[in-house]
Amino acid sequence: MENLPGWLQDLLLRLLTLVRGRQWVSDYLINQIVKHGRNRPHPWTTKHDYISWTGLTDRTYSARLLPAMPTPAQEALRSRRPPLDETVKLFAAEPTGQRPCRKSTLLFPAFAQYLTDGFLRTQVSNDAPYDSLTEDRRRTTSNHDIDMSPLYGRTPDQTRVLRRMSEEAGQKGKLKSQWIGTEEYPPFLFGADGKVKPEFCDNGRPVLDFPLGINRLPTGSRQFNELFAVGGDRVNATPYTAAMGTLWLREHNRLAGMLERHYPDWDDERVFETARNIVIVMFIKLVVEEYINHISSAAASFSANPRICWSAGWNRPNWMTTEFSLLYRWHSLIPQKLRWAGRVIDGTELSLNNGLLLEHGLANSFVDVAANHASQLGLQNTAAFLLDAEKKSIAQARTNNVATYNAYREAMSLTPLRSFAELVGTSRNPAEQARRDALAAELERLYDDINNVEFFPGLFAESPGANGPLPRLVMIMVAMDAFSQALTNPLLSEHIHGDEQTRRLAFTPQGLEVIDATNSIRDILARNSTDLGDRFVGMTRQDWRRNAA
Amino acid sequence: MENLPGWLQDLLLRLLTLVRGRQWVSDYLINQIVKHGRNRPHPWTTKHDYISWTGLTDRTYSARLLPAMPTPAQEALRSRRPPLDETVKLFAAEPTGQRPCRKSTLLFPAFAQYLTDGFLRTQVSNDAPYDSLTEDRRRTTSNHDIDMSPLYGRTPDQTRVLRRMSEEAGQKGKLKSQWIGTEEYPPFLFGADGKVKPEFCDNGRPVLDFPLGINRLPTGSRQFNELFAVGGDRVNATPYTAAMGTLWLREHNRLAGMLERHYPDWDDERVFETARNIVIVMFIKLVVEEYINHISSAAASFSANPRICWSAGWNRPNWMTTEFSLLYRWHSLIPQKLRWAGRVIDGTELSLNNGLLLEHGLANSFVDVAANHASQLGLQNTAAFLLDAEKKSIAQARTNNVATYNAYREAMSLTPLRSFAELVGTSRNPAEQARRDALAAELERLYDDINNVEFFPGLFAESPGANGPLPRLVMIMVAMDAFSQALTNPLLSEHIHGDEQTRRLAFTPQGLEVIDATNSIRDILARNSTDLGDRFVGMTRQDWRRNAA
Repeated sequence: MENLPGWLQDLLLRLLTLVRGRQWVSDYLINQIVKHGRNRPHPWTTKHDYISWTGLTDRTYSARLLPAMPTPAQEALRSRRPPLDETVKLFAAEPTGQRPCRKSTLLFPAFAQYLTDGFLRTQVSNDAPYDSLTEDRRRTTSNHDIDMSPLYGRTPDQTRVLRRMSEEAGQKGKLKSQWIGTEEYPPFLFGADGKVKPEFCDNGRPVLDFPLGINRLPTGSRQFNELFAVGGDRVNATPYTAAMGTLWLREHNRLAGMLERHYPDWDDERVFETARNIVIVMFIKLVVEEYINHISSAAASFSANPRICWSAGWNRPNWMTTEFSLLYRWHSLIPQKLRWAGRVIDGTELSLNNGLLLEHGLANSFVDVAANHASQLGLQNTAAFLLDAEKKSIAQARTNNVATYNAYREAMSLTPLRSFAELVGTSRNPAEQARRDALAAELERLYDDINNVEFFPGLFAESPGANGPLPRLVMIMVAMDAFSQALTNPLLSEHIHGDEQTRRLAFTPQGLEVIDATNSIRDILARNSTDLGDRFVGMTRQDWRRNAA
Repeated sequence: MENLPGWLQDLLLRLLTLVRGRQWVSDYLINQIVKHGRNRPHPWTTKHDYISWTGLTDRTYSARLLPAMPTPAQEALRSRRPPLDETVKLFAAEPTGQRPCRKSTLLFPAFAQYLTDGFLRTQVSNDAPYDSLTEDRRRTTSNHDIDMSPLYGRTPDQTRVLRRMSEEAGQKGKLKSQWIGTEEYPPFLFGADGKVKPEFCDNGRPVLDFPLGINRLPTGSRQFNELFAVGGDRVNATPYTAAMGTLWLREHNRLAGMLERHYPDWDDERVFETARNIVIVMFIKLVVEEYINHISSAAASFSANPRICWSAGWNRPNWMTTEFSLLYRWHSLIPQKLRWAGRVIDGTELSLNNGLLLEHGLANSFVDVAANHASQLGLQNTAAFLLDAEKKSIAQARTNNVATYNAYREAMSLTPLRSFAELVGTSRNPAEQARRDALAAELERLYDDINNVEFFPGLFAESPGANGPLPRLVMIMVAMDAFSQALTNPLLSEHIHGDEQTRRLAFTPQGLEVIDATNSIRDILARNSTDLGDRFVGMTRQDWRRNAA
């Protein structure tokens, strides 16, 4: 549809509005979106620049949508890349402050981070002591599935140490947790001696991934002592992600309790595994129906119908691409200043600071997350404290030698752009138009030719459309990878979901009812807290209306 | 077709004969065969008797076509299983000797073993010293792909120690080998000190899987000293499999030499990986076009057309099932006595005895393998020295609680049998008919009801048909799993094989020519030996003609 004239797109969208909400419309749109790009298996990975068995099978490397630039002409492009320090300046927010996102609250990036930290995972060595973590930005520790690894861990050993593993009544199937007042949280990772608690170690060796950035915290400091023992190494990153981790921990334990009551003869293992089945499928439902629908600029809404992929040509083994892991770095969504518990704080204060969550409580924290507006995703809009993250992303794209922005447009069945003006787009607002003109001039100074623009800065040089928080190419690529890797989840497969008896075995009738009744993060929060009341918790700003802009 | 009347089957087969060799006939038949059973992903594995995330993702457990027998009625069946020692007696060859297979030479089981040892792999712990190997018959060390792991190893570390890893001219991309006279063989695993050579160790710890059965050999004995360092733990099992391993080693090194001459600027890694790409695809071609066509009782022949699975509903991630690993145990094909180098030897002499190969040379050994006839696959036909292997298989099926023979017929869209007479079938030969009558009576004594017959003995209670070496249910299940897991190989995928330029990148034009010109094991042997002449090497007995029986 991207290549149709504007008036025809408008007409089609209006027609679509008439049938929105119908299952077949959602199914049709999902198929169209996924077919924008090549299906898997990808012939290329970050292991070798040529096709090799190791590359095709060693899933500790990322797949790639396009091969590493191999021709002499493309080689020449590499040498023409602007210096890293100049490229990163494209991302820095202007002194006048960040542009706000018209559609999203901060629940949107909070959910996005908790989601993607589960499967977009640059390899970090956990062998070294935690003050000298090393990274290999060609490799990944991903399981390549939406498996709630931030909650359950990436490996069977991590899952084991996170579980209570108790056959006692009321304990079966549950994850370890602690109660602070009336609130349930994940347990703390470190003991009073400043060491990882023995229960999270195997032969004296820590089993869980260390929280990223922990080397910035003095051992024994308050923030250090309040780090949670959780499945993901970024759950502790901010009180936002920690709140998300706490919410899912409570929901898992609530479900385990429910299952134990209904199936008293089940052992701890079966209660645990069945609660996990329910949690994963519930999470995927929210990914599609709350999160992707928030992202989508389409007039129709998507539903997580597992049937759509059973016979689809894109139902192929998941393998996260290096491009997917780059395009999901949405640092500019985060404002430099935000409100928390009635005061204005700096974004830097959030880092590894679970204290903010513990003092405020889970429901209050979510209400505050959703009361803040995201800033707009795009160049010239990243807060100062996140510029180093942008720099690492640009460098990672270069390390993995990804192709140009225009090459990816072609790969996604979009017309390549012909000018920098086309890339930054136009605005009816004169001040905004002046900013875009200046940005186009700066891009031209750095890249000379639109065909030289790198993938990562190019993605964010576009501005989001009127109805969604994402620039168009990012949106299409996110939706393609999300649908084609979420709906292929083995728990949604034909021989589980296509047979009512097997479906009940996998989730229990009670579990299916819970999944059915859950439509938002807020639904889960409401049943896992006592003080939410009727307060707003959502990804879409309350003052936003579709097509309002 | 299985359920059609005999005269209609005959008519269809005759019609098929008219179009045999056409690509669409092969494609049609492959699709029909694969659709006998449920496609993947399987909801069930050997991890849990219920559906769990661990079961759906931990590929160190086997998948299962049918769930573990969970209902009370099925539970009752378990307790009615005959004692192991009585069940295994069903397999023992009669005192009058083994019945011969009308179709196959011993090259057939030799190839089958080398093939399946690569992906049907019961877990054996390699941590223990090699005199106390432990097994867990619920688990597997399979990569679930036809990846030539018997040649290259199962893990990156194993591959590394098997490679020369040299950038010297004439060495690039090659596997380690030794020359004995004019013949190239894999290197020996052990040094003069009776220890694994340091080059096959990592920090003093052996990296390769130990040859199975090694604990039967005294350290420093001739057989011990002549064990090869190879990728698979069963390549040393007999000189037959060792000859197969030697053949593929030579072919790999020959291809590496060819590639190095054509692409002198490539490094060791690229030469190695590209030679491996060619070897794997050549092997899969032989699996379908030499091996499956030998197995097949169809009048038409199959060709390894990668296109057939690109849009097929059965193109789903491979995962070997516990049933597949059981039904592939064809011990009765091996005669008690056989000819080697002009003398009659006992089957037991083959075990871990590479000396027979080294004395005889590769070409002579293959000629001798093909000069021996296999015995017939079926009950009452296993040589005494292999009865213990049958016993382990029956026990493994019970450990994994597989369903009954008739349940698998239903799962494969065949009519369940109603009597023991139907199971053993009829013969025009009165002596053979008498044997079958007695076998049916013994089966009835052990199982009482045809619906109680276990999967493993039931498979082999059938007799092979006139045109193939396998009983019918075995043949269908083998073909289903072979096609649906061979043609899904990532090296045969759409975006490699569907694009001529990418195909040339993956295999080189020279490699594609070699694959194209290779139609049999004999072709490979001819170019990797000097003394084959025009002697016969093939899986199908020279005195067998299709439909002759």
